[in-house]
Amino acid sequence: MDLGTVRTLGNGPVRVAVDAMGGDHAPLEIVTGSLSWARSHPTDYVLLVGVPERIQAVAGGPIPANVEIVPASQIVEMDDSPAQALKSKKDSSIMVAMEMVKQGRADVVVTAGHSGAGMAAAVLKLGRLPGVDRPALAVQMVTETGPFVLLDIGANMDSSGHNLYQFAHMGSLYAERVLGVANPRVALLSIGEERGKGDQAVQQATKMLDDNGTLNFVGNVEGRDLVKHMADVAVCDAMVGNVTMKFFEGLAGFIFKLWEKEFRGSLRGKLAYLLMRPSIGRIRTLFDYEKMGASPLLGVKGMVLITHGSAKRRMIEFALDAGAASGRAHIPDLIADAFRGQPRHPGQGVS
Amino acid sequence: MDLGTVRTLGNGPVRVAVDAMGGDHAPLEIVTGSLSWARSHPTDYVLLVGVPERIQAVAGGPIPANVEIVPASQIVEMDDSPAQALKSKKDSSIMVAMEMVKQGRADVVVTAGHSGAGMAAAVLKLGRLPGVDRPALAVQMVTETGPFVLLDIGANMDSSGHNLYQFAHMGSLYAERVLGVANPRVALLSIGEERGKGDQAVQQATKMLDDNGTLNFVGNVEGRDLVKHMADVAVCDAMVGNVTMKFFEGLAGFIFKLWEKEFRGSLRGKLAYLLMRPSIGRIRTLFDYEKMGASPLLGVKGMVLITHGSAKRRMIEFALDAGAASGRAHIPDLIADAFRGQPRHPGQGVS
Repeated sequence: MDLGTVRTLGNGPVRVAVDAMGGDHAPLEIVTGSLSWARSHPTDYVLLVGVPERIQAVAGGPIPANVEIVPASQIVEMDDSPAQALKSKKDSSIMVAMEMVKQGRADVVVTAGHSGAGMAAAVLKLGRLPGVDRPALAVQMVTETGPFVLLDIGANMDSSGHNLYQFAHMGSLYAERVLGVANPRVALLSIGEERGKGDQAVQQATKMLDDNGTLNFVGNVEGRDLVKHMADVAVCDAMVGNVTMKFFEGLAGFIFKLWEKEFRGSLRGKLAYLLMRPSIGRIRTLFDYEKMGASPLLGVKGMVLITHGSAKRRMIEFALDAGAASGRAHIPDLIADAFRGQPRHPGQGVS
Repeated sequence: MDLGTVRTLGNGPVRVAVDAMGGDHAPLEIVTGSLSWARSHPTDYVLLVGVPERIQAVAGGPIPANVEIVPASQIVEMDDSPAQALKSKKDSSIMVAMEMVKQGRADVVVTAGHSGAGMAAAVLKLGRLPGVDRPALAVQMVTETGPFVLLDIGANMDSSGHNLYQFAHMGSLYAERVLGVANPRVALLSIGEERGKGDQAVQQATKMLDDNGTLNFVGNVEGRDLVKHMADVAVCDAMVGNVTMKFFEGLAGFIFKLWEKEFRGSLRGKLAYLLMRPSIGRIRTLFDYEKMGASPLLGVKGMVLITHGSAKRRMIEFALDAGAASGRAHIPDLIADAFRGQPRHPGQGVS
C-alpha cells in the first residue's frame, strides 16, 4: 500500500551529483532538499553542482561535511533547445554533473532541470552502454499492492520491437534490484490481452521475448490492467508511456478535485470531511506523486535520475533516495552484463 | 457536468439495426434494452437481428409496432477469429445487420458483440467511404466541462501521419454534428505540448493539418491536458488511444474502490457515507461509463456503433441514443463530402 519508496540494497556510501541549478525552483528548493538529505545520510556524499555564490546564498550557512560544491558557470533554461544548449553551454550544471560521473567522482546524477537536456547530456557525456541501442526513461506507478515500472516514457520516438525488447530487460533489472521485486513479471503494454496483439513493434518484441526466454515475460497487458498490478514492468513506446503517465497525473488530480469540491460545498460535506480525515490521508499518501522521486534513465554509462521540473525540497529528498538506491544497486553494470556480447543494431539507436 | 449524453440533431425517424446476438449478455439484455428504447421512441424503428426464436423467447410477449425481427442464423462468438468468422458465418447477426444498412433498410448498426468482428464486418460489407484510407474508432471521454472525442482507439495499427490527418477531420465532424460542439478544437495527443513534438506520424500530421487549415487545429495536447478539456477532439494512434481509454476505466474504478473501502471500513466512514450520498451520486453520474453509449466507427459507408461487450439493457439504451443521433446527423455523408476528391493513399489503407 505504498507508492513505492525505493528499497535500499547494499550499504556502501553513494556519491550523488545534484544539478543544483535545474528546475522551476532552483537553486533554493534543490539545495535545501539536498542539504536536508545529506544531513540524514551522513555516510553518503552530495556534490552540489552549480554557481557557487548562488548555492551558498540559498544554503544560508555552513554546509555539512558530506556536501561539496562543484562549480559550473552556466544554466540550461527550460526554454532552451537541448541540442543547442549542450553545445553552447559546456560548463552548465547538468553537463558538469554528468562529468562528475564520467570522472568517477560521483555515482549518480539527479536533476530537476529540462528533461530533454538531461537525457541528451547523459547520452552525449556518458554515452550508451555497450550493446544498448537506445536508453529508456522509466517511472514507478502506483497500484494497491505495490508499484510497477513503466518504460519508455520519453527517451525515444518510434521505438522498434528490438528497442522494446531491450527496454524489457532494463526495466526488469531495475524492478528486481532497486524495487526488490523477485522475478519481475514483464509485460508489453498493448491494445489487447492476447499475446502478440498490437502494432508491429509489439509483435516483433513478443517474438524476441518469447525466443529469448530469460525474463519472466507474461505477454500483453491492457490499459485497464495497469492498476490491477498485472505486471511489475510494463514496456511500451514512449508515446504510449508518456501519455499514460501524464494522464494518470491529470485524471487522479481531477478526481481528487471533484471530491474536494463536494467536501467543501456544503455543511454535510464539511462534516463528512472531518470524519474522513484519516481516510483522505491514506488515499492521498497512496497517490503522493512526490514519493515517486525520480525517473531513472536506463541504458547509459552511469546512473541518471530525472525528476519533476516542479520538484520542491521534499520531492528532491525522495529523488536522492531513489538515486542512492539506484547507485548502490549498480544498475548500469548489471545492464552492461545483461547486454554483453549483443551487437548493436545499426539504425536503431539514437542518432 | 455530464458524461456527454448525445445531443439529438434533426427530427427524422431513424432505423437502427441491433445485433441482438452480440455481447456477453445477448440476447436477453440487448433485446430488453432495445425494446425499452423502441417504446420510448415510437417514431423511430428498431430491427432486431438474430435468431428469431431466441429473440422472441427473451422478449417475453408481443413486440412494439416499431420493432421488426430480422432473421440471422449464426453468431460470431467472442473467441472467434474475426476474419475466419466472417468468412464462415455469412449469416451471422453482425453480417446481416450490416447488410440492412447496405440495402438501405437501416441507417445505423449497434453491436455489443466482438468489436474486432464488428469493425471487420463493417469494412467488408459496407466498405470504406471514398477518399478515406482507414476508418477510426472513436470514444467520448469525460471532463468537468463536457465530453471530448478520442480517436483512434482501436480500428488500426501503425497509423501514418496521413491517417491521423484523416482521423482529425472525421473526429471534428462527429464532435460538431453529434455532440453539438461549435468549431471543435482538434489536437494531436502527444508527448509534449510544443506543436509538432512527437513521433514521425505526429510530425507529419501536424504539417498536414497546418497546411490544410480547414480545421480548428490547436496543436498538441499531453496526457494531463485531456481531463482539462483542452481539446474537443484528441487524435492519436490506436495504441495510445486504446491504452488511454482503458487506463481511464481502470484508474477511475481503482480510485472509487479506494473510497468505497474507506467509507465501509469504519463507523466514521459509514456516517460520512450517509452525509456524502448526494455528492457520491454526482461523482458517480459524471463517471457513468454506460452513458458513453457506444463508439462510432468513422469512415465506412454507413453508421456503425460498437458498444461494450459487457453492456446491459441500460447501456444498450444509451447506445441506441448515440446511434440514433449519429444516424440523424448523416455522419457518413458529411465525411464523404469532406473527403471528396482526395485520392486514396496507396499502402496506407486497411489491407
